[in-house]
Amino acid sequence: MTYPTVELRLPAWVARAAPPDAVYPSPEARMRLAIRLARTNIERQTGGPFGAAIFERATWRLVSVGVNLVESLNCSTAHAEMVAIMVAQRRLGRYTLGAAGGQSYELASSTEPCAMCLGALPWAGLAGLACGARGEDAGAIGFDEGAKPAAWVAALARRGIRVTRDVCRAEATAVLADYRRRGGLIYNGSRT
Amino acid sequence: MTYPTVELRLPAWVARAAPPDAVYPSPEARMRLAIRLARTNIERQTGGPFGAAIFERATWRLVSVGVNLVESLNCSTAHAEMVAIMVAQRRLGRYTLGAAGGQSYELASSTEPCAMCLGALPWAGLAGLACGARGEDAGAIGFDEGAKPAAWVAALARRGIRVTRDVCRAEATAVLADYRRRGGLIYNGSRT
Repeated sequence: MTYPTVELRLPAWVARAAPPDAVYPSPEARMRLAIRLARTNIERQTGGPFGAAIFERATWRLVSVGVNLVESLNCSTAHAEMVAIMVAQRRLGRYTLGAAGGQSYELASSTEPCAMCLGALPWAGLAGLACGARGEDAGAIGFDEGAKPAAWVAALARRGIRVTRDVCRAEATAVLADYRRRGGLIYNGSRT
Repeated sequence: MTYPTVELRLPAWVARAAPPDAVYPSPEARMRLAIRLARTNIERQTGGPFGAAIFERATWRLVSVGVNLVESLNCSTAHAEMVAIMVAQRRLGRYTLGAAGGQSYELASSTEPCAMCLGALPWAGLAGLACGARGEDAGAIGFDEGAKPAAWVAALARRGIRVTRDVCRAEATAVLADYRRRGGLIYNGSRT
């Protein structure tokens, strides 16, 4: 007897909605892609109201995307940011997006990362993080964002990750509100 | 053009070293399994010096295992604890190990979880965490454990996760020391 292999596959609509290598020159365009992924994810009922995208900073070329796939993959770690990181590393064939080749990469997330995803950012070798909705906006619809360090923005800065908050926050928060209005599943691990 | 699928597969030796569903009645036996996985992982050169295992608490039956596969899978999130969580959820066919069916589950980790893995525990629905080496033991050989909340043990307790520390700590720390002695890769994301 053996252990199963875990497969993380993006829904088929994702590559059509966000073709790889398209260029997103402005911070708002990049964030609106993450927000659009979050919105389509709830409309297609493929997961929770969260989207993320990773860009190469020199060109603002789209390297990878992620959406929340916790329920559809039965995988509690399949948050949008984690999926985007894993897909990017798989595409680039290396375990860190930092240093090698001199390229640097930025993650746009439709909502500020939870404690797990925050912890994942330095390991991933990211150089920047842009956030739409705030953690408290996710908290307002019932999600528990976990125990983040009080000064998480400064903690990331110390590890070389520059954080920009509140990019298109109202548009991002509207997706969260829509999710609740539709009666979407609010899962919080041990209390579910 | 589309995005790649991410596959997380345990090395072939793992199921032989830790057959699914074997019973580990004592805390030391459970931790020694996690430590043995960490040690074999460095001996077989399939990853870093970290091992983890998840047990059903009613029976202490082994549900899943994980080893660090960051380098071999080119995946910065493939820490031992994350792999064990994903494999367990895949085996059980649900995204939380909490509540459903009344079963509860405990994770044994050869070293205290990093910031990412700590954040993953509540989402996974775990009820307990046993740790071998301390975070500072990993720090002593050069690993950056990330920005954990100062009172992370209490923060997990508030989310229903009971933490036991220092189980076979000396044996667990010896694996970390051996890894450094062998010249194993110490990677820290953006600084690598």
